[in-house]
Amino acid sequence: MVYNFSAGPGMLPASVLEEVQSQLLSYEGSGVSIVEMSHRSSTFMEVVHDLEHRLRRLMHIPDTYAVLFLQGGATLQFSMVPMNLRNSGRFAYLDSGTWSKKAMQDAKPFGDVVVVGSSASTNYKTLPDWSQPIHDVDYLHLTLNNTIEGTRYTTLPETNVPLVADVSSNILAEPIDVERFGLLYAGAQKNIGPAGLTVVIVRRDLLQEQDVPSYLSYARHVDTLLNTPATFSLYVAERVLAWVEAEGGVSEMERRNREKSERLYDALDSSTRFRPLVTEPSCRSLTNIPFTTGDDVTDEAFRQFAQTRGLIELGGHRSVGGLRASLYNAMPLAGVNRLIETMQAFEQGGHDVSH
Amino acid sequence: MVYNFSAGPGMLPASVLEEVQSQLLSYEGSGVSIVEMSHRSSTFMEVVHDLEHRLRRLMHIPDTYAVLFLQGGATLQFSMVPMNLRNSGRFAYLDSGTWSKKAMQDAKPFGDVVVVGSSASTNYKTLPDWSQPIHDVDYLHLTLNNTIEGTRYTTLPETNVPLVADVSSNILAEPIDVERFGLLYAGAQKNIGPAGLTVVIVRRDLLQEQDVPSYLSYARHVDTLLNTPATFSLYVAERVLAWVEAEGGVSEMERRNREKSERLYDALDSSTRFRPLVTEPSCRSLTNIPFTTGDDVTDEAFRQFAQTRGLIELGGHRSVGGLRASLYNAMPLAGVNRLIETMQAFEQGGHDVSH
Repeated sequence: MVYNFSAGPGMLPASVLEEVQSQLLSYEGSGVSIVEMSHRSSTFMEVVHDLEHRLRRLMHIPDTYAVLFLQGGATLQFSMVPMNLRNSGRFAYLDSGTWSKKAMQDAKPFGDVVVVGSSASTNYKTLPDWSQPIHDVDYLHLTLNNTIEGTRYTTLPETNVPLVADVSSNILAEPIDVERFGLLYAGAQKNIGPAGLTVVIVRRDLLQEQDVPSYLSYARHVDTLLNTPATFSLYVAERVLAWVEAEGGVSEMERRNREKSERLYDALDSSTRFRPLVTEPSCRSLTNIPFTTGDDVTDEAFRQFAQTRGLIELGGHRSVGGLRASLYNAMPLAGVNRLIETMQAFEQGGHDVSH
Repeated sequence: MVYNFSAGPGMLPASVLEEVQSQLLSYEGSGVSIVEMSHRSSTFMEVVHDLEHRLRRLMHIPDTYAVLFLQGGATLQFSMVPMNLRNSGRFAYLDSGTWSKKAMQDAKPFGDVVVVGSSASTNYKTLPDWSQPIHDVDYLHLTLNNTIEGTRYTTLPETNVPLVADVSSNILAEPIDVERFGLLYAGAQKNIGPAGLTVVIVRRDLLQEQDVPSYLSYARHVDTLLNTPATFSLYVAERVLAWVEAEGGVSEMERRNREKSERLYDALDSSTRFRPLVTEPSCRSLTNIPFTTGDDVTDEAFRQFAQTRGLIELGGHRSVGGLRASLYNAMPLAGVNRLIETMQAFEQGGHDVSH
């Protein structure tokens, strides 16, 4: 058994992959693979319908919100958000790390970016404060869970401007109160399914005609497939959502993710060799846990040691180094237990390669 | 055996799908599916490398051109082309049908669109003429093969402005002289692999810094993966290209596509019941063949009759109706022979439902 701690594309439920494999050559006895089917065929349109409705049920998304299935990852949303929500051309951002900074950068061609809070001073080990009231902007953007830094918001700013959030790494991993937001977006490749799908959930009254090209206009994607999506990704995502529903829904996912992350954090907090990067418990992500031995060489030695024991992708993001365990919905508790045992074996085994 | 005449997503080689199925739970014995792997892992980077180099070999793409793997389909390219190649802000287009009109529409927010030729007067059953010399524009755009109308260019305009072409439906189906073009783009879901991948081939000297957001800038994608691509689509595309190479390359694909399309056109030209929409042989596509009985009700009766015999997706595009057979690389000659037999059986069987 291999446990895959990749931050994304990440682990998928084994039962889903087995079903996809069994159906790959002939979908439901049709003699044709789902990946060979027209996205306008009745069979595939049913997949899209089921995907949308499962997501609406799981996240309690009301009809006043549209659900869009796009491509280009969260990165393309960094520019589609300001392109489509622009009115005054002033946009507020909370700066909580790498991905929120990228989002800001891509908004700049479309207006003035106002940073209303930043945790740069703690090297993003905490979350930004927002002391001043936020108004006179088209929206306030935040990264609800910071995949690289391992932090997540548990309280939201009180403001009457629409909240926009990147929820790529915590969608379906914990409940999100959709109605607190104007727009949510997420790359699929962490908790939804394979890469190639980006989910956008947007309050319909925020949609407006803008002079933007067809693909880049939210309005053109509402309640229709504008063009050919990554059909395999949508198909597998629908199966993953069926699995989440069968397992008990988002609240059950949260219970499991809380148990997994608390167990790992307890081990890190009590370890003599490893320490977590996020020390403030109220800021800790349920899904992305960065840690270190404090030493690059020893971190790399542990990564290799763990890999020989079937625990893979424990390296930190290339921009920060260190170690990181991503505990998405498909990661079983057994994987976390095995990681903790492996940390203890490394601690006790005299794997001291520090200089 | 089912033969799938879908215009895209279309039929894939059976041997490729079988290999993908056998590897789906554990890629090359790794214990992890390729769709669960980080796009930055050495295993996946090797897939990307092989995909690029197979495409370069198959299409004779010199190093002076970059090969980009994007998302968003040809539709997103309709706006990325003018965004990135803009200098004077004047763009020339040849209007050969539905997709070239969509490309023009999406260029309008970025400059002046000059239509230098149109075949609207023949209802796009022929290709546009370009009598006047073309200069003082940033590029000349054409749709090399018209998926809906079933036409394709066999001669190109002589001009010193960069030629830009949408080659979604004929890439790898026939040789394309890359060095005649400044930029080529293609959605994968016809001759390359599953949907979710868009290939862009661009002459490096045309790349320039523009004030565009990261995902929408070609320069940001050159020789790197800017963000997570649709990994499954890239993986399968690499396997399809290996299949094309093993089968004899693009010239062999062209030989087969020529044989398939000529056989079908011969049957249509000599039929008493069916007729091709494109009557001028020099304009006929090798890959998309629209035809009709001349009557919507009879067309639909034939579509259903063919479906009961395992020939699926023969309906014309929803914008034009009628019938259409797409004969991409993965469609064997046996499928075309079976279609012709089925047309003859329909002709002889008194399936007269016309009013």
